[in-house]
Amino acid sequence: MTLDTHSETALDHAASPEGDASHHGYITDKDKYLNRMKRIEGQARGIHKMVEDEKYCIDILTQISALTSALEAVAVGLLDDHLRHCVVDAARLGGEAADAKITEATQAIARLVR
Amino acid sequence: MTLDTHSETALDHAASPEGDASHHGYITDKDKYLNRMKRIEGQARGIHKMVEDEKYCIDILTQISALTSALEAVAVGLLDDHLRHCVVDAARLGGEAADAKITEATQAIARLVR
Amino acid sequence: MTLDTHSETALDHAASPEGDASHHGYITDKDKYLNRMKRIEGQARGIHKMVEDEKYCIDILTQISALTSALEAVAVGLLDDHLRHCVVDAARLGGEAADAKITEATQAIARLVR
Amino acid sequence: MTLDTHSETALDHAASPEGDASHHGYITDKDKYLNRMKRIEGQARGIHKMVEDEKYCIDILTQISALTSALEAVAVGLLDDHLRHCVVDAARLGGEAADAKITEATQAIARLVR
Repeated sequence: MTLDTHSETALDHAASPEGDASHHGYITDKDKYLNRMKRIEGQARGIHKMVEDEKYCIDILTQISALTSALEAVAVGLLDDHLRHCVVDAARLGGEAADAKITEATQAIARLVR
Repeated sequence: MTLDTHSETALDHAASPEGDASHHGYITDKDKYLNRMKRIEGQARGIHKMVEDEKYCIDILTQISALTSALEAVAVGLLDDHLRHCVVDAARLGGEAADAKITEATQAIARLVR
Repeated sequence: MTLDTHSETALDHAASPEGDASHHGYITDKDKYLNRMKRIEGQARGIHKMVEDEKYCIDILTQISALTSALEAVAVGLLDDHLRHCVVDAARLGGEAADAKITEATQAIARLVR
Repeated sequence: MTLDTHSETALDHAASPEGDASHHGYITDKDKYLNRMKRIEGQARGIHKMVEDEKYCIDILTQISALTSALEAVAVGLLDDHLRHCVVDAARLGGEAADAKITEATQAIARLVR
């Protein structure tokens, strides 16, 4: 996932100049995330169907693991964008604003790491 | 989550006698899982909408953490049912069948633990 | 980690007949776990040293991730042995004893999955 | 863990002025981390002893979960310090240096989130 996240990040930055990025808010490539979330919704529906059809438990668990990994990849990507834009901007302003942004980001990371 | 899983498991077992459980295949309370998956699909749609509306990144990450926890609770519940039915049945038969079921369950657990 | 766990499990079972396994209690290959835990203690000391020497934060985090993965592999291996021996034995006895063992195992899995 | 991380961070910042922090390199409170790592080494030795003494599997798993949580708390704390110092400094310089620091931090987070 690390390499994946990295290469995507690199690509986004090749693909979207600062201006474009700021136009999209903190999200470097909004369409990428919308497509990923569409896929994730489809995976959730698929798991619902598997339970409905009483598919083999282990196969359902495999799909749940895949969905969880997909969600984690989205979370790490959004966090990368957040650090790259909101946190970097706050850091330039410095002071309490920067401290507050970092604390907020760390708490989000703690929730993801669990 | 442990206590939650535990109490639910206890309830299921109070609520559904063996016969009922076997009628539902390995799933002790199918409707419970269908409802949970419906909620999870709704959470995924909600996160898609948050990205669409460019909600604050940290708020999206909080929802992703909540969705991941909900999926983990479903996975642990299904695994509990699987151990309680498929694995216990295989254990009674014993031999390679039992060994294979345990190996399969352990691999599913390894994917969940990561 | 799944394949790793699997192949090790397969090996243990080739290497240790039931009698041997029961002589070691629920642990199929005690020496394997003692060696792994020794390595893990060494990894923990190494991380302490890295903080002491103020090594680069990211390098310390990489070592913490490696240590966490090593601990998860030990946990999954022990859980496999536990299911293979304690839970299977309880399943053969059946009734509340089996139910209690499964609930206990599920709660341990829930703590690992988090 | 979130609140815990937060309050500790707050405390560190009350307790250690910038000058002190920079004297400790990127680590806001080095002694705190050295003490935590000492405790973690003790926990690892304790788990080795439990395997040695063939303690009940579930009790060993409980200790492994506790040790993993302790490591995650250290990782999140170090990451907080890293963002607060290295990343913020890089952000002020801006350009590729800042981008590279964020990518490096995101990859470390991806390894922790898994």
